[in-house]
Amino acid sequence: MADNFIGIDLGGTNIKIGIITADFKLLWKTSIPTDAQMGPGVVIDRIAEAVKDKTDTIKAIGIGSPGPAKYSEGVLIRCTNMPKFTNVPISNMLKEKFDKPVILENDANAACFGEFVAGAGKDIKNMVFFTLGTGIGGGIISDGKLLHGSGDNAAELGHIIVKINGRLCNCGQKGCAEAYASASATAKRTMEAIEAGEKSSLKEVLEQNGQITCKDVYEHLAGGDELAKKITDETAEILAVLCINTLHCTEPEKIVFAGGMIAAGDVLLERIRFYFKQHVWKIKPEDSVEICFATLGEDAGIIGAAALAVNL
Amino acid sequence: MADNFIGIDLGGTNIKIGIITADFKLLWKTSIPTDAQMGPGVVIDRIAEAVKDKTDTIKAIGIGSPGPAKYSEGVLIRCTNMPKFTNVPISNMLKEKFDKPVILENDANAACFGEFVAGAGKDIKNMVFFTLGTGIGGGIISDGKLLHGSGDNAAELGHIIVKINGRLCNCGQKGCAEAYASASATAKRTMEAIEAGEKSSLKEVLEQNGQITCKDVYEHLAGGDELAKKITDETAEILAVLCINTLHCTEPEKIVFAGGMIAAGDVLLERIRFYFKQHVWKIKPEDSVEICFATLGEDAGIIGAAALAVNL
Repeated sequence: MADNFIGIDLGGTNIKIGIITADFKLLWKTSIPTDAQMGPGVVIDRIAEAVKDKTDTIKAIGIGSPGPAKYSEGVLIRCTNMPKFTNVPISNMLKEKFDKPVILENDANAACFGEFVAGAGKDIKNMVFFTLGTGIGGGIISDGKLLHGSGDNAAELGHIIVKINGRLCNCGQKGCAEAYASASATAKRTMEAIEAGEKSSLKEVLEQNGQITCKDVYEHLAGGDELAKKITDETAEILAVLCINTLHCTEPEKIVFAGGMIAAGDVLLERIRFYFKQHVWKIKPEDSVEICFATLGEDAGIIGAAALAVNL
Repeated sequence: MADNFIGIDLGGTNIKIGIITADFKLLWKTSIPTDAQMGPGVVIDRIAEAVKDKTDTIKAIGIGSPGPAKYSEGVLIRCTNMPKFTNVPISNMLKEKFDKPVILENDANAACFGEFVAGAGKDIKNMVFFTLGTGIGGGIISDGKLLHGSGDNAAELGHIIVKINGRLCNCGQKGCAEAYASASATAKRTMEAIEAGEKSSLKEVLEQNGQITCKDVYEHLAGGDELAKKITDETAEILAVLCINTLHCTEPEKIVFAGGMIAAGDVLLERIRFYFKQHVWKIKPEDSVEICFATLGEDAGIIGAAALAVNL
C-alpha cells in the first residue's frame, strides 16, 4: 500500500534520502554523492535509481534544499557550489519522474520540522530551531506550523542583529548573531585572538594547519585552554541573546540547537543556559522555555522533508 | 438581524466601545470612564448600559485588555492601576451578561488585528505591529493569523535586546529596544542628556515643568533643536534594528508603527526608513518590506477586538 513518504535532503556534496511512515518512523535511508556537475536531470535519475525498488509504497515526496528558492513554487533559484542548479523546477521534475505529489522546503525548515514531529520538539506546538554550522540557520514552528513569511524567507534567525555596527556578516549586515556565534565565526574569532597575541594551546594548531576549526576550539576547551573557554563563553552569550530575542517574537516552549557545533556537548549547552538565565526577564518563570539540543542528528532533514509530504 | 460585533478596548482610564459589521466597518463608537474602583461587576453593567439599545444587532463580542491575562481562558490576571481587576473571568462575565460568544485578546494584539483587517495592513497576509507609548507593544500576523505563542505572550517585541548589557528596562532585562525607543525612554534619554550638560531649547521646558515628554521632544525637533534631532535619530536607529530583527523572524510585507509617538510624523518615519536601509541586508530588495504608520488611530483597538469576534 502506498502509505509511506520519501524525504530528500539535497546538499552540495551528498544527497540523503529516507523513507518514513505516516507517523514519522524512519524505515530506510541512504546517501549518494550529489555529482551536481551532471546537472539536475541526471541527479534526479540517480535519486530515482536509489529508491527504485521501493516506489510502490510511496504516497508523496518532500525535498529540502538550501536557498535561495521559490519554495512555494518548487523552484530552486541558485545553489552554492551547484552552478547547474539555477532556476530548476525541481518539484515538477520529481513529480514527473515519480508521478507523486512533491513539496519543496528550505533545508533548515525541513530539519526544524523533522525535530518538531519526531525529535526534540515532538510533544510541543511552538518551537524555535537553530542550526550552527558555517552560518546559523533557523526555523520557527508556531501553533504546530512552520512559518514561511511573505516570501519564503522567514526564520533567517542568524541575521538578527545583536550588536549594532558590530562584526560584518556575510549577508552584508553588521552585528548579526551569525557573525559571532556560527561554527565558522567561532573559529574565526579564535584565530583573530591568537593573531592578536592571546596565549592558547590552539596557537600550535593554527601554525600547523594554517587554520583553526570550531572542533579544535572544543577539543582544547575540554583540555582546559583559557582562550577556548573565553571564546565559547562569547559564543554562548550571543546564542543566549538570540534565544531571548526569538522568545519575545514567537514564544516557543522549546528552543532547539542542531548542527555540527553541538558536538561541543553539554559544556556549550550549559553556558547558553547560564547566559540565558542571566539576560532574560524575570516576568515569566525561567523554566517556561527549555533550551536543548536536537536529537535526530543528520536524519532530521530527511524525516522533516518526508513529514512535510504527509499532508500533501 | 444579529450580524454585527462589539469591540471593547479596556483601559485603566477609559473604556472604548465600538460596533462593526462583519466586513469591519465601524458603525458606532463611544467612550466611557473605566471607574475601575467600582469593581468588574459594575464596569460590565456600565458597558451593557452603553450599548443597551443596540444588542439586538450583535452576534459576538471581542475585548482587548493589557496583560498579564490568560487570554485563551478569558481571565484577566492583573491590571495596572485596576487592583479590583485581579483574576477576573471577564469573558464569562460578559457572556452571561449579553448571552453572546466572547473573545479576550491582548490589547496590542487587538490593535494589531484592527490595523490588519481594516487599516495599514488590510491588503497583506504578514505584518509586524509596534505601539510606541510608555513601552513598546507588539503584534505579529503570520499568514493571516495573530501569533499567540505557547503562553499567550508572543510578540513582546519591545523586549528584543538590541544592546547586550545596555540600558536597564522595566522588565528587568538590559538593552531592550523599549529601554531606548519607547516614548517614555525617548523623553528620559533627553532629560539625561540635558542633565549631563548638553545644550538644548528643551532645557527651559525641563526647568519649567520638572520633566520633558516625548511630545516636547518632537515639538523642539520641528523647531530645529539639535539635541532633539540627535535623540530622534537614536530612537529611529533602534526602531530600525527592531524592524530588521522582526523581519528576519517572521518576514512581514509591512511593519506598522502606532501609538502616541507617531504624532511626531514623517520626520520620525523617514529616519526609521533611513536607518533600516543603512542596516538591513542587501540580499532582498529594500522595498520588499514597507515600514509605515498605522491609519486607524485610537479605533484600531475596538475594530480589532470586534473583528476577532467575527470568527467565533
